[in-house]
Amino acid sequence: MKALIYRAVGDVKLEERPKPKIAQPTDAIVKLTKSTICGTDLHISKGDVATCKEGTILGHEGVGIIDEIGNSVRGFKKGEHVLISCICSCASCEYCRRGMYSHCTTGGKYVFCLAIQKDKTDYGHSGWILGNTIDGTQAEYVRIPHADSSLYPIPSGADEAALVMLSDIFPTGLECGVLNGKVEPGSTVVIVGAGPVGLAAMITAQLYSPSVIIMIDKDHNRLKVAQTLGAHHTIDPSEPDAAGKVKALTDGKGCDCVIEAVGVPQSFELCQELVAPGGVIANVGVHGTKVDLHLESLWAQNIGELSDSHLEQGTDSIQQSQLD
Amino acid sequence: MKALIYRAVGDVKLEERPKPKIAQPTDAIVKLTKSTICGTDLHISKGDVATCKEGTILGHEGVGIIDEIGNSVRGFKKGEHVLISCICSCASCEYCRRGMYSHCTTGGKYVFCLAIQKDKTDYGHSGWILGNTIDGTQAEYVRIPHADSSLYPIPSGADEAALVMLSDIFPTGLECGVLNGKVEPGSTVVIVGAGPVGLAAMITAQLYSPSVIIMIDKDHNRLKVAQTLGAHHTIDPSEPDAAGKVKALTDGKGCDCVIEAVGVPQSFELCQELVAPGGVIANVGVHGTKVDLHLESLWAQNIGELSDSHLEQGTDSIQQSQLD
Amino acid sequence: MKALIYRAVGDVKLEERPKPKIAQPTDAIVKLTKSTICGTDLHISKGDVATCKEGTILGHEGVGIIDEIGNSVRGFKKGEHVLISCICSCASCEYCRRGMYSHCTTGGKYVFCLAIQKDKTDYGHSGWILGNTIDGTQAEYVRIPHADSSLYPIPSGADEAALVMLSDIFPTGLECGVLNGKVEPGSTVVIVGAGPVGLAAMITAQLYSPSVIIMIDKDHNRLKVAQTLGAHHTIDPSEPDAAGKVKALTDGKGCDCVIEAVGVPQSFELCQELVAPGGVIANVGVHGTKVDLHLESLWAQNIGELSDSHLEQGTDSIQQSQLD
Amino acid sequence: MKALIYRAVGDVKLEERPKPKIAQPTDAIVKLTKSTICGTDLHISKGDVATCKEGTILGHEGVGIIDEIGNSVRGFKKGEHVLISCICSCASCEYCRRGMYSHCTTGGKYVFCLAIQKDKTDYGHSGWILGNTIDGTQAEYVRIPHADSSLYPIPSGADEAALVMLSDIFPTGLECGVLNGKVEPGSTVVIVGAGPVGLAAMITAQLYSPSVIIMIDKDHNRLKVAQTLGAHHTIDPSEPDAAGKVKALTDGKGCDCVIEAVGVPQSFELCQELVAPGGVIANVGVHGTKVDLHLESLWAQNIGELSDSHLEQGTDSIQQSQLD
Repeated sequence: MKALIYRAVGDVKLEERPKPKIAQPTDAIVKLTKSTICGTDLHISKGDVATCKEGTILGHEGVGIIDEIGNSVRGFKKGEHVLISCICSCASCEYCRRGMYSHCTTGGKYVFCLAIQKDKTDYGHSGWILGNTIDGTQAEYVRIPHADSSLYPIPSGADEAALVMLSDIFPTGLECGVLNGKVEPGSTVVIVGAGPVGLAAMITAQLYSPSVIIMIDKDHNRLKVAQTLGAHHTIDPSEPDAAGKVKALTDGKGCDCVIEAVGVPQSFELCQELVAPGGVIANVGVHGTKVDLHLESLWAQNIGELSDSHLEQGTDSIQQSQLD
Repeated sequence: MKALIYRAVGDVKLEERPKPKIAQPTDAIVKLTKSTICGTDLHISKGDVATCKEGTILGHEGVGIIDEIGNSVRGFKKGEHVLISCICSCASCEYCRRGMYSHCTTGGKYVFCLAIQKDKTDYGHSGWILGNTIDGTQAEYVRIPHADSSLYPIPSGADEAALVMLSDIFPTGLECGVLNGKVEPGSTVVIVGAGPVGLAAMITAQLYSPSVIIMIDKDHNRLKVAQTLGAHHTIDPSEPDAAGKVKALTDGKGCDCVIEAVGVPQSFELCQELVAPGGVIANVGVHGTKVDLHLESLWAQNIGELSDSHLEQGTDSIQQSQLD
Repeated sequence: MKALIYRAVGDVKLEERPKPKIAQPTDAIVKLTKSTICGTDLHISKGDVATCKEGTILGHEGVGIIDEIGNSVRGFKKGEHVLISCICSCASCEYCRRGMYSHCTTGGKYVFCLAIQKDKTDYGHSGWILGNTIDGTQAEYVRIPHADSSLYPIPSGADEAALVMLSDIFPTGLECGVLNGKVEPGSTVVIVGAGPVGLAAMITAQLYSPSVIIMIDKDHNRLKVAQTLGAHHTIDPSEPDAAGKVKALTDGKGCDCVIEAVGVPQSFELCQELVAPGGVIANVGVHGTKVDLHLESLWAQNIGELSDSHLEQGTDSIQQSQLD
Repeated sequence: MKALIYRAVGDVKLEERPKPKIAQPTDAIVKLTKSTICGTDLHISKGDVATCKEGTILGHEGVGIIDEIGNSVRGFKKGEHVLISCICSCASCEYCRRGMYSHCTTGGKYVFCLAIQKDKTDYGHSGWILGNTIDGTQAEYVRIPHADSSLYPIPSGADEAALVMLSDIFPTGLECGVLNGKVEPGSTVVIVGAGPVGLAAMITAQLYSPSVIIMIDKDHNRLKVAQTLGAHHTIDPSEPDAAGKVKALTDGKGCDCVIEAVGVPQSFELCQELVAPGGVIANVGVHGTKVDLHLESLWAQNIGELSDSHLEQGTDSIQQSQLD
């Protein structure tokens, strides 16, 4: 089969590979119909992800059709259409029991890498193994461990180009942004970053009927898209006084829920200026360096909390709210 | 009457002052029987608190006896023994309705100060007004605004030297440390800082039956006190590898609840090394400068949240759990 | 002024009465612009409400204009437009502090009635005093105790005929139905009873984006209204197998949230047939007699909970979510 | 091997049976070291449980040693000491994902019985299959489906007679009583029924530091045991005015948390008299008939909720809080 391979730093190439086989009775083999490329794949190709070894097939998002199942898989059978979660989870370990599927210790048992380089990210134990420590979804077929708890049935005939966004993008926006950000009816919400995950947060925030959604991004095309999908106000942070504009839109208070969806120190800095007393900053962006946290001023703000939990539930929440 | 006055930076002195009078129908005058000195009073005397003007009577903690009440106070009468909350709250404004008494906008209506100096803390709107923007409790008598919602009845004959710790110290430890830290049965807890508030957090954490409480402090006397009050383990952070010792005590995971009760960058840095995946860092310490937040490594840790909300409920929670 | 008086059982009449005066410094006098009639007023006129004495002015809903304020009212001034909550609450007593404004002990201090008749409802301590134990809103003017925490500012020029529904109807539907019923994105919801409160529950449930809302009522006109306001399906319970129809619409499971908005044993019986495993029955209807609770079958259903808390927060929640 | 068999109504006998074998790759065979008898076993022997067919080995509690594992079991190996949960759960189905292990649809796939008799309890889909729809633990060996999520490791050398109480009794008391009852620091708690489950609720309630625990039972020996294990007060309900005594101990309010641990209409009736405004009735008792629910008076009480969810999480919560 054809597969996209991480060959070396800066070297990613389509190659011929053997079709994967069932390795454990809990595995399934899925024939991909749609996959997509994540920002994380770009990090891998730059050599930023120590756990991903040269020769790995990339990709952790996808929809497809069950091609084969291990003999203890009960929930699926050959020919069913499925959504692949970016997180493989056993559902039984301590972290899975607590709903923290991304920390699955069984999903992550292959994860340890012998030499973690100092300046690279170590994902340690993790439920993110596809396209990282095992071969991923940017191929004609993929082996999915723990199939019963890592795949979701989808209706045949659904728009698979749309559904592939439920593998990672939408759960990340909803769980790390909206749920951690505690959006509720009447909340004021500002999202810094209108990329795919920021937009996914914006769309799913609307499930909770906030009173105001403000999108901040330097890219005016993205801001236009945001407006068509439900943003009430948009702000370009390269123009002066973005924080002042947000306060002007919120009776001078700032926002109850501030979602960081960029991942650089400046955007995190801005978020701290935007949060209302008692509000929450939900960090979604993947940061490469430490940031400044202004506890010296936030403490008087009574900032409710700052959350930074990524992909806590895998695709699970989306499954329940979107596909039912 | 005698009162302790903040006269100027570095100049605090006992002076003679007139006894306070009822100014609003919702006020009460309380004759103090016990007061105490908070670390914040020391900040004022150093000139760190811009809102506290020269000539103010210090103090925001105390127990005493109702001496006089305004004509719309319903809950108290002359002669009753009361605990004074460090937070005066109207109970009716938007923030009080949300249980954020420390942001009471009416309690804080006197707070605006004309010239906030650049390098000083501005408490802005705040329910902390006693010994800050109005005269406080380090005097023979004090005027308490919003008496019905800022005083708590105490049994006569109670140990008032003990009860004065419920004005500020214990609610801060419980609410900002234990409740924000989400301590629950079986939790592993580490508290960095064994001063009065750290110890109050340690004592109130035990209401939720954590499996392990670890106290970290350089002061061996404080650690000894901690042991007699319930600490399972104590660690001196000036010795090597405090983080390694905490991990060794928690199956290599770190702690579910990390409480920062010091307020300097180094202790906050240590806290980030101590938190388990899915855990919470509850910041209680009052920080004078920004700190480094290691989002670049915490994100893979799935740190549940970092909270930094001070005195959210004033003395209220203590009242309910301790005095009932 | 003109006022509607409960004169005796079955005898309600418009009479001339003196304009009310400020009795406490926390009172306000409101000139009514809109009021409305509640089902509870009909109960009073039938003699069902023991606490309401003959001669009382009826009514606990209304909007109007501040005519006069007591000297400790801070939040309002003469001429402001206000919404009157059906619940008067002091905001300071134990129950108000817990957010249970309808149990305000100060609001209710006038409530005790000397002779509670055996077969009548005793509201005991209660925040519902207007048109019950003190004169109400079906008059040209009304005295509102605890004005700061019992009135809400409304924009002048708003549709006051619409806003009067926020005095009681909408908070009851939202708090007792939707919030107690724990509606969340993707939930399946069935509401038994499409009267004003049932419809208010239906409208406010949509703030949480449930996947299905089913309305059950014998009155086809009400069902038509429900359809125009967002009901996905409607069922007439006088036709056979209402429960079967609900199960057919919910994959055979029943509904996650069942709201009872009628108040008779048969409708409560039906609710118990409609609830999904792990679901919630939220009782909103005012029941005159006991009902059968089928613990013998519900226990195997793992019914999450059955709630029956009326007007817990008074108008507060609506204020926050609707008028901000 | 020897096994206790339900032969027919009223006929339970020790018989010789073949040792069970692995049937699915997810199974484990456990050699029992301790088992115990539940009240439910007595119901089976009386013929009350329709799903339990004649010839079934009884028992759903036990500790033992892994004798053999299926080839997809990862968490256990031969020779390990384990606790058996009364609930077998797949951890992957919709209900398991929601933490409702007792509704596991895979655990319950064997459950359907052809002829449910009218007057018998139908457990329908259920995670309780051991000693019900498949052979149970009152034998020398038992086959455990879904071993990875239905067994818990225990330290060898532990007191196994004590640990067997974690199979069913303690999780039922904690989850259905204490957690559903929302016991928290300072709560007032009354438990009607001081049998094993009532006592387990009483012991685990203490993890949350309630201010008062009152036990009600007719059996004075049980009340004495309760006193030695932490009850503050005990009441014999066959003496007059049990409700009055509870109110006298709680400032006339009744209790915040009322736990029903008997299962007859009279005890449920008593519970409704004992609940404080805003309190919770948590039903733990297994009821054979419907009960009266006094909505006509409870609604004015603002009863927070009534919960009736049995074994929601199986043994999981105990595992986390007790064995860590």
